[in-house]
Amino acid sequence: MAHYRCDYPMRWSDMDAYGHVNNVQYLRFFEDARIEAFGGRRSAGGSSLLDTGILVVAHRIEYRKPLTWRPEPVHIDLWITRLAGAQIDVGYEVYDEHEGEPRVVYAVAESTLVVYDLTNERPRRLAPEDVERLDALRGEPVRFRQRSRATA
Amino acid sequence: MAHYRCDYPMRWSDMDAYGHVNNVQYLRFFEDARIEAFGGRRSAGGSSLLDTGILVVAHRIEYRKPLTWRPEPVHIDLWITRLAGAQIDVGYEVYDEHEGEPRVVYAVAESTLVVYDLTNERPRRLAPEDVERLDALRGEPVRFRQRSRATA
Amino acid sequence: MAHYRCDYPMRWSDMDAYGHVNNVQYLRFFEDARIEAFGGRRSAGGSSLLDTGILVVAHRIEYRKPLTWRPEPVHIDLWITRLAGAQIDVGYEVYDEHEGEPRVVYAVAESTLVVYDLTNERPRRLAPEDVERLDALRGEPVRFRQRSRATA
Amino acid sequence: MAHYRCDYPMRWSDMDAYGHVNNVQYLRFFEDARIEAFGGRRSAGGSSLLDTGILVVAHRIEYRKPLTWRPEPVHIDLWITRLAGAQIDVGYEVYDEHEGEPRVVYAVAESTLVVYDLTNERPRRLAPEDVERLDALRGEPVRFRQRSRATA
Repeated sequence: MAHYRCDYPMRWSDMDAYGHVNNVQYLRFFEDARIEAFGGRRSAGGSSLLDTGILVVAHRIEYRKPLTWRPEPVHIDLWITRLAGAQIDVGYEVYDEHEGEPRVVYAVAESTLVVYDLTNERPRRLAPEDVERLDALRGEPVRFRQRSRATA
Repeated sequence: MAHYRCDYPMRWSDMDAYGHVNNVQYLRFFEDARIEAFGGRRSAGGSSLLDTGILVVAHRIEYRKPLTWRPEPVHIDLWITRLAGAQIDVGYEVYDEHEGEPRVVYAVAESTLVVYDLTNERPRRLAPEDVERLDALRGEPVRFRQRSRATA
Repeated sequence: MAHYRCDYPMRWSDMDAYGHVNNVQYLRFFEDARIEAFGGRRSAGGSSLLDTGILVVAHRIEYRKPLTWRPEPVHIDLWITRLAGAQIDVGYEVYDEHEGEPRVVYAVAESTLVVYDLTNERPRRLAPEDVERLDALRGEPVRFRQRSRATA
Repeated sequence: MAHYRCDYPMRWSDMDAYGHVNNVQYLRFFEDARIEAFGGRRSAGGSSLLDTGILVVAHRIEYRKPLTWRPEPVHIDLWITRLAGAQIDVGYEVYDEHEGEPRVVYAVAESTLVVYDLTNERPRRLAPEDVERLDALRGEPVRFRQRSRATA
């Protein structure tokens, strides 16, 4: 069970007129965190998951505490909550952590991604080497507070 | 059962390097849709829900089809899926609709909001006049495809 | 001497933590205003200036008065200040105007654009039909307050 | 003559549908560069220029070369081109620099700022300690290519 940890620099403009990091911007943070976690993990051959195309299919996010801009980066943990067929579920936690103090969590979230064959324009199964790389980031389910009402 | 319908003008910059409206921007669209739906509904006294403060507590979104920028607005339907205590759940659908053709749905989503007393800094129950106004926008649950795995 | 006038809908997120439309967002507004003014002016043949590629080479902007978000669009005037070779200079004014009151100007600006041949990757002279279309939007120089210190 | 140098991390979303860092985003970069250069320079007493309020009065920018997103930061130099009364003129250069190769410049720009007394709502002269701090960042005029046509 391993998390990929980003030290993510905020921008002053991430704040909205209420003086807090705007709720929408968290998903922007996750976009860059995914690129860093997946794209940076190139194999010796130089290919990465990003070369194959990844589509965002769904997001779910819960906000826990307002976050205000400061020069210091915020921490973002990213991990894999499920791998199945062409689908990758990714968990996130946005937080601060200082020694001797409890972790301050600003948001938890989960995205559903689909690996996509850009040439043939359809989802494709994860290649064994992708699974291997992603397995290294396997983690626990995201601890949402709210029970989401499943519907169909 | 009524939906509030926005004709929302996209910006060219809503597109990302893939040439599609970026997944994050949909939440930006919803921010403006909420302001239009709630803020615009002022009573004779001139107050609106926005004057009391509304916090975003959670979002959930499913993407159905890529959307490309064009000069014509996209339609956004917004409706209330649940009212309880200080909490307002809002459903959204982003779509195009042309006569004689089936509706093209780009995304469905749901937000959980909490009405907040800015002076005393705590959630507050919805006032009867708020409930009355919001009741006019009551609608069905959002039809997500994925069953979200509830956790605790 | 004619100006193209956009009624531009702001987004709540155009405001920054100071509660004013952020200075950077004005250039975002101009991006959409150019697309509307140039792209919307398709000839019978259906081509537009945008099909040929337009590069932004320079911007200059002066802010006159803080602008706060409101549901009503702000006016943006756009006009051509110079046409020469492959270069198009565009002037802008962002303002409100109410009958019987003096115009409230929030910003004036000018952009230098270059018409670009995307196939051959180099600037290309304006075609006679482009010149004709753009001539219809010719206007006066932008009235900047500051004398810009030319350097080389 | 000293420049303040930022190593500025781009975001993937800084790119637009053309796959280049969008022209508007450069001004966003400068916003953060100013905050880092001015806000970070706190005196022993803990005050900074940002505490007093700084208004953006004008920008001018010339684009030299398209910039594409990559994980590595881009360099931004920031320096003072003029100090006079309440006014601070700031120059910028966005560039890459690799040993043994000529500097690759993506854009040069200049902003005019006014130091503002937030309490009394009017421009205020720079305090001697501000001048001292800013003097350390004095540099040459920005080398724009185009002669800006001054008007009145």
